[in-house]
Amino acid sequence: MKIKYELIKGEKNTKARHGKLITNHGTFETPMFMPVGTQATVKTLSVEELYDVNAGIILANTYHLWLRPGEDIVAKAGGLHKFMNYKGPILTDSGGFQVFSLAKPKDITEEGVMFKSHLNGDKLLLTPEKSIEIQNKLDSDIAMSFDECVGFPHTRKYVEESVERTLRWAKRGKDVFNNENQSLFGIVQGAEYEDLRKHCVEELVKMDFDGYSIGGTAVGEPKDVQYQQVEYSCKYLPEDKVRYLMGVGDPIDIIENVIRGVDIFDCVMPTRLARHGHAYTKYGKINLKNKKFEEDFTPIEEHCDCYACKSYTKAYIHHLIKAEETLGARLLSIHNIRYLTRLTEDLRKAIDEDKILEYKEEFLKNYKF
Amino acid sequence: MKIKYELIKGEKNTKARHGKLITNHGTFETPMFMPVGTQATVKTLSVEELYDVNAGIILANTYHLWLRPGEDIVAKAGGLHKFMNYKGPILTDSGGFQVFSLAKPKDITEEGVMFKSHLNGDKLLLTPEKSIEIQNKLDSDIAMSFDECVGFPHTRKYVEESVERTLRWAKRGKDVFNNENQSLFGIVQGAEYEDLRKHCVEELVKMDFDGYSIGGTAVGEPKDVQYQQVEYSCKYLPEDKVRYLMGVGDPIDIIENVIRGVDIFDCVMPTRLARHGHAYTKYGKINLKNKKFEEDFTPIEEHCDCYACKSYTKAYIHHLIKAEETLGARLLSIHNIRYLTRLTEDLRKAIDEDKILEYKEEFLKNYKF
Repeated sequence: MKIKYELIKGEKNTKARHGKLITNHGTFETPMFMPVGTQATVKTLSVEELYDVNAGIILANTYHLWLRPGEDIVAKAGGLHKFMNYKGPILTDSGGFQVFSLAKPKDITEEGVMFKSHLNGDKLLLTPEKSIEIQNKLDSDIAMSFDECVGFPHTRKYVEESVERTLRWAKRGKDVFNNENQSLFGIVQGAEYEDLRKHCVEELVKMDFDGYSIGGTAVGEPKDVQYQQVEYSCKYLPEDKVRYLMGVGDPIDIIENVIRGVDIFDCVMPTRLARHGHAYTKYGKINLKNKKFEEDFTPIEEHCDCYACKSYTKAYIHHLIKAEETLGARLLSIHNIRYLTRLTEDLRKAIDEDKILEYKEEFLKNYKF
Repeated sequence: MKIKYELIKGEKNTKARHGKLITNHGTFETPMFMPVGTQATVKTLSVEELYDVNAGIILANTYHLWLRPGEDIVAKAGGLHKFMNYKGPILTDSGGFQVFSLAKPKDITEEGVMFKSHLNGDKLLLTPEKSIEIQNKLDSDIAMSFDECVGFPHTRKYVEESVERTLRWAKRGKDVFNNENQSLFGIVQGAEYEDLRKHCVEELVKMDFDGYSIGGTAVGEPKDVQYQQVEYSCKYLPEDKVRYLMGVGDPIDIIENVIRGVDIFDCVMPTRLARHGHAYTKYGKINLKNKKFEEDFTPIEEHCDCYACKSYTKAYIHHLIKAEETLGARLLSIHNIRYLTRLTEDLRKAIDEDKILEYKEEFLKNYKF
């Protein structure tokens, strides 16, 4: 079965939408924040902890799983769900983002991308067909087309050529796609050029994907450029398909892009920040390593319903982080992911009440950057 | 309230005993394996995971907690239980074992031990009084007397002097002890000399401790020497008090020393082995990093009731360990601790059936060293 997106309610004053996505591994409501499980594990967490923080869906990285343990081993295990014992929906990326950060410009050809493995330096070629073949074997619920992720800044001429290549690659991937229980997304590129985004959307929609991702974001662009890219994409995307903004997960970016019509977000920041001792709070990020928390016997956030806040104090987490005990990163990962999934819950509620702009204003009043 | 030991049944053919220990934080049966939570956390595990593996009691290290976060912060948190959110019994060591491994021989005086902090090189003095004062503040259920842990090998003359010092230190600690909800153990030293062990036990018993530890083990002595040290200690220890063998937790050593009358064991090995990718099994230790497990889609042990074995395959844990994902060490820690707590459960059953020697024989038939 392919995924199905259903709109529950559109917000009156903005493009924000409250919907739900029905998958073979359960239904979740959108907007939703999706934690990143790069190597078939969301760093430091068990799958039960993921269920507990209401992560409706998780992401796994095709590039990493291709190199280790290899898609054939995952397939022999019965697919990614069985391999990692996760019963909820899983989305895989195409490997494109990782590969482009390892490749040199001249390594991008019509065929695909040549790059060196970050594990052993082996020269490898990833193509649109190979990316789909790997994802078909991983058997995630949702696969991504292999696209070219253009960095920032760039020239218009390069983006024009790149969008055409991304469209040809999307077609090539779709042609070899072979997994009836998996859905395939097209990826909208075109940088900050409205006509290119429009063109890219229109061509992808002709190919009829199960959902659409917005790419070319989270590559160092200023926030206003990112928001414009999203606006120029959502404007042309079909209402009846889900929209996933790749690599974006800063709280304010989630709010701004939900307002522009995005449904799903992913980002490594909640777990990466956790490993460095940071926690999201209503008042901005705090660094638990800070000495002022040494004798602070209150939770990270008083009214947070996460396991870390219900059971542990800042003083204890401060101690764990200073002592380099992994339970510290685990508690902060739980809190940070829950912070973002709760943020999307709050946004769904704000959409239902047609009050998302008020929600944003209130959020910005408290949150220190 | 002080702890209370009750004998449930003595094994007919050996000195093995099945008993229970009643503490302010719950009752558990003995023999029992006690996981080590050096820095107020059993590495990689949550407290719920400790409850799940039936760890009747855990150990925390006075030396480490003294240095970081400091006993005063733990006291302000309301004691170690509240600080780390652990509701079961906690035992603290005296800091002696850690300090002696950092001190040079000439640093041991009648007053105490001078040594350098492993964190910042500060010169520090730990005395019997200071150790007790710290433990009183940590507010564990069971505190240890500060003793001199003599290494192996040694001269009889040195051990003779050392036993007398350990006895004087035990007295000094007991004199300043001030926590009515905490119990205090005396530590039996005397190396492999029966007369010195006997003398040490007799003098400690005169001081009337709440329980007794057997020390001078796990310092590099051959196994037969260790078993003899235990025999020479248990032989003279009172039947109505619990006996804790410090630092010993190898499966076969648990069996051999239960047979000699020991009730409680602790060891860092199950969690340390886990971090290096090793798991205990009925057939001996296995290294999950080994390539032969890459496509092994069975659990570590088929009939193990631990979370890791119920939910994950060797292939997945192999992948996690190779990918340096902390969930791997966590799953192996859960398994290894459960392996040892189940071993002590099996031994209690064997005692009830007067079949502990048969149990040992059967165990040795399977277990490859």
